[in-house]
Amino acid sequence: MKKLILFLLAALSLQTLQAQELRIEPLNWWVGMKNPKLQLLIHGKDLKGAEVIAKKPGLKIVKVHTADSPNYLFVDCEISKNALAGSYPIDIKKDNKILHHIDYKLDSRTPNSANRPSYSTKDVIYLITPDRFANGDPSNDAAPTYREPNPARNEMYGRHGGDLKGIIDRLPYIHDMGFTAIWNMPVLANDQAKESYHGYAITDHYLIDPRFGTNAQYKELAEKAGQKGIKLVMDVVLNHCGDGHWWMKDFPFKDWINFDGKFVSTTHRRETVQDPHVSQYDAKMQTEGWFVPAMPDLNQKNPFMANYLIQNTIWWIEYAHLGGIRIDTYPYSEKHFEARWSDAVLAEYPNLNMVGEEWSSNPIITSYWQKGKINRDGFKSSLPALMDFPLQNAISEAMNENDQDWGKGLNKIYSVISNDLVYANPDNLVVFGDNHDMSRFYSQVKHDQALFRMGMTYLLTTRGIPQIFYGTEILMSNPKSNEHGEIRGDFYGGWPGDIKDAVTQRGFTADEKSTQDFFKKLLNWRKHAEVIHTGKLTHFGPENGVYVYFRYSEKGKVMVVMNKNATAKTLSMGNFAELIKPGAKLTDVLNDKTQVLGASLDVPAKTALVFEVR
Amino acid sequence: MKKLILFLLAALSLQTLQAQELRIEPLNWWVGMKNPKLQLLIHGKDLKGAEVIAKKPGLKIVKVHTADSPNYLFVDCEISKNALAGSYPIDIKKDNKILHHIDYKLDSRTPNSANRPSYSTKDVIYLITPDRFANGDPSNDAAPTYREPNPARNEMYGRHGGDLKGIIDRLPYIHDMGFTAIWNMPVLANDQAKESYHGYAITDHYLIDPRFGTNAQYKELAEKAGQKGIKLVMDVVLNHCGDGHWWMKDFPFKDWINFDGKFVSTTHRRETVQDPHVSQYDAKMQTEGWFVPAMPDLNQKNPFMANYLIQNTIWWIEYAHLGGIRIDTYPYSEKHFEARWSDAVLAEYPNLNMVGEEWSSNPIITSYWQKGKINRDGFKSSLPALMDFPLQNAISEAMNENDQDWGKGLNKIYSVISNDLVYANPDNLVVFGDNHDMSRFYSQVKHDQALFRMGMTYLLTTRGIPQIFYGTEILMSNPKSNEHGEIRGDFYGGWPGDIKDAVTQRGFTADEKSTQDFFKKLLNWRKHAEVIHTGKLTHFGPENGVYVYFRYSEKGKVMVVMNKNATAKTLSMGNFAELIKPGAKLTDVLNDKTQVLGASLDVPAKTALVFEVR
Repeated sequence: MKKLILFLLAALSLQTLQAQELRIEPLNWWVGMKNPKLQLLIHGKDLKGAEVIAKKPGLKIVKVHTADSPNYLFVDCEISKNALAGSYPIDIKKDNKILHHIDYKLDSRTPNSANRPSYSTKDVIYLITPDRFANGDPSNDAAPTYREPNPARNEMYGRHGGDLKGIIDRLPYIHDMGFTAIWNMPVLANDQAKESYHGYAITDHYLIDPRFGTNAQYKELAEKAGQKGIKLVMDVVLNHCGDGHWWMKDFPFKDWINFDGKFVSTTHRRETVQDPHVSQYDAKMQTEGWFVPAMPDLNQKNPFMANYLIQNTIWWIEYAHLGGIRIDTYPYSEKHFEARWSDAVLAEYPNLNMVGEEWSSNPIITSYWQKGKINRDGFKSSLPALMDFPLQNAISEAMNENDQDWGKGLNKIYSVISNDLVYANPDNLVVFGDNHDMSRFYSQVKHDQALFRMGMTYLLTTRGIPQIFYGTEILMSNPKSNEHGEIRGDFYGGWPGDIKDAVTQRGFTADEKSTQDFFKKLLNWRKHAEVIHTGKLTHFGPENGVYVYFRYSEKGKVMVVMNKNATAKTLSMGNFAELIKPGAKLTDVLNDKTQVLGASLDVPAKTALVFEVR
Repeated sequence: MKKLILFLLAALSLQTLQAQELRIEPLNWWVGMKNPKLQLLIHGKDLKGAEVIAKKPGLKIVKVHTADSPNYLFVDCEISKNALAGSYPIDIKKDNKILHHIDYKLDSRTPNSANRPSYSTKDVIYLITPDRFANGDPSNDAAPTYREPNPARNEMYGRHGGDLKGIIDRLPYIHDMGFTAIWNMPVLANDQAKESYHGYAITDHYLIDPRFGTNAQYKELAEKAGQKGIKLVMDVVLNHCGDGHWWMKDFPFKDWINFDGKFVSTTHRRETVQDPHVSQYDAKMQTEGWFVPAMPDLNQKNPFMANYLIQNTIWWIEYAHLGGIRIDTYPYSEKHFEARWSDAVLAEYPNLNMVGEEWSSNPIITSYWQKGKINRDGFKSSLPALMDFPLQNAISEAMNENDQDWGKGLNKIYSVISNDLVYANPDNLVVFGDNHDMSRFYSQVKHDQALFRMGMTYLLTTRGIPQIFYGTEILMSNPKSNEHGEIRGDFYGGWPGDIKDAVTQRGFTADEKSTQDFFKKLLNWRKHAEVIHTGKLTHFGPENGVYVYFRYSEKGKVMVVMNKNATAKTLSMGNFAELIKPGAKLTDVLNDKTQVLGASLDVPAKTALVFEVR
């Protein structure tokens, strides 16, 4: 009975697919890609059995695959090495009738596209929730044909109207602050019934959500950012889609979505991925289980799904001139697919940085995924970067704990950084104090300004690539709850009529002002502090709540001194003799003071000092 | 002034060294060792400049090294391949006078000495505190010439009189219980002013403490244990000695003891050993710092010290027919020395198992030390086994935590075991619930019998080599304090007049009886359960406080079901279909019951059941 209803529902929904309506993805492709292969997904009514005929040399049809649904064709194409950019006509023919005529575009690539630079330790990434950053174009706030058509700024989980135009308009601000990369939460279409604002429930893989703007605007954002030296990092979701996805009405294959398209929850046991003792049952539940009923879990073991996702990522990189990738919920997807996906992207863009979200405070688990790691089970990941959740956890706990307790407080940072041995490349970890899924850092430190700055100073001077969550630079917090809707608050000044404005500091408290000034100073200093980008890190075990570390290379030397005590300390410098000696000239970067080092150093209470050493 | 006093004290102490008194170490050696080299330490008055002359072919003097002190010679010898066992006369000659005539013994080795078996996953190790186990020979309780001459059984940190004879007498008990290896805390001479009972402050590396017995008795223990299939595991201390050590009065070299023989505390930062960001300062403090003033820290970077320690270990293995080694405070010694030490021991005894104490709950740190581990810093350890402190910590917390909390309770065991990927050989980890340095397991679980058995059942059925602390099998605990003196309580019946006796169960409570019976049953079953020794481990993520795992191979299959809830559970078996199906015949090992499995299984409250599956 249930099956019959499902069948009738499916039959009904197909009525919406008009005879002439045809979906071809990727929307276009490029000549001169390293991989000459391309697999087109063609979706239209009753295509099964149709012939696909390429009419112009340069694009060759190699094989046409049929699917379980009669409305799909998967067409393997090969693009010849010397094919020129232009239209490539393709006919779809069935029963001696041409059903569809397609003008498929092969474009030329921008110069140096394959070898584009990407984000690195030189950069600081600014993480933005687009719906909550700035409403640059109020005319796109509503999307009448979408299932959540109207904005609702007064609702925590409603759409607030932020958009790509808002980010574009604030590029000068982002640049002036000293950020050099933007990672924005996903902006692809999320035609979902509710909570569509976050973007992680994609319903069309080739379309910017109209409430955020257009495909062209996304490209414009990347280009204008690039002109300011800012890289645009796309948030890619390989694990799931939204239940409003167009293909949910007509699966190409029965196994397109895990658990036959029906909700079964993941167990969130990330350890299953690397566990030598794992049961098949637990492994399956972790990767095939869904997050929530509204987010169907994609089956990347289906080779057509795998190709679809790989091509989709490459398409956006090439189309929008992206400067990097962030991958959502990394340990929830099939790991061998993910290795293939990374390999394919890196084959086209060898320098592209891609950071995966593995939310574990255990470096054994996070390090498993990094490219170059030799794993005992033989698994070879190709993912260049990981989010450094273990360090995030350590910093947060370090700021809140008593330094007198064994292994606690600053000792926790010391210990976690000591684990760097497990990573193939600890410098390519993205370090952060907060993000869109957790309490803001100012709330984590219980609204203690001094601890807040200490944590942020650490992030911006230790190894790795710092990431700052939008609003953290102006002391935004979530005092009332840990609700995502509160954490992802509206950025000050992004909406007409806002009392406060982050760009002009209008309406700012003294604390907000000084925090923003602090970030601006430190970020702009870091931008040119090569020793922070590439210098070696050497640290000294915290003693009595004081932690000292150095970054150094032939480019210079920086000493950071963190005093977490509520009292000033006079630090005897003898223990650090291997890296600094009395007589050294110190420039206090944050306070523009210089001094000549004696046998000891005075450090104010609850302060992190950053010194250039000469 | 201070230096002058030290000099006078040293000069004074040398007066005790008679002209004819001579110390030669190793006491003897063997023909047919793989390494033909031998370095003799000779200590006697004013030896500097003396000639050392070997009088019989087979033992050749290669080089004589002088030391900083005039009273030492270090003599490099080479033993020829076909040398026969016997006396090898050596003369020490100075100024044309023969100062000393030595009859150095080269003995023949016992057959198969090099390829002796050692402890493995087939074994369960019984950890004994010799002073507290059984007083087999009251005549040796006092040692009039020693600095702590008299026993004081009523004092927590005094000597209680336990000895080797006591262990020898109880070998039948140990064997009947099902233990197949004994690791006893060190029994070498500890001529210390106080707390000498624990044995870790060695004052003579070639002498059994007279209060424990004699060298011959130690050998007798190993031999008699061997006759019962029990391996004797020696507790080796490479890091430090006691401040009453004979050489403390006359260092051979100025750098014999770290920090010039003066107390500087270690920082206990074990992470420094593997930390890529470590400062020289922290690295030095960790390995060169001392534990306590009474335990001078040995400088193994001195090559003569290194040779001394290596030869001493090999000497005891060969002399006493040892079946394995446990190494104290592993991460406090110089790691390159330790690798050399392990290599040298394993070169002579390739099958010998050696387990290091690295007290960290972080598997990144413990796994660093295991032979076969590929470390990113290039360090190659040769230590075959590690104490599994991470699992000990997890079991203890698992028993005390609420299973409904994320990652807590049994989930903690699941997660920690999942980390096995970081080990080169997780099967060669020694697993334990308690040892001589921490609260007894029954106290750890707050004297809850059911949780106690659950933890112990886990230890005896999971991967690795279980170790049980003496007394744990009869429910000993430390309810009053965490004092080592209380933890290392007197074993019941080891002293004349004891009210209770563990061998006969005289005076035992019902709980003590049933606990001992439980261990006896499980240990003796495990002894012959090959699938536990070598079978694969597969586990299933705990759900609602129930944890299920299997051990299996072509030798059979065992299923363990742990229900930590205060109520009985009916467990649906569908999730485990990959390893067990309805119709399987189950034998409940602990309760001697059999049943045929249906679609579900009833598990009583707070119980771990061990089933043989057929």
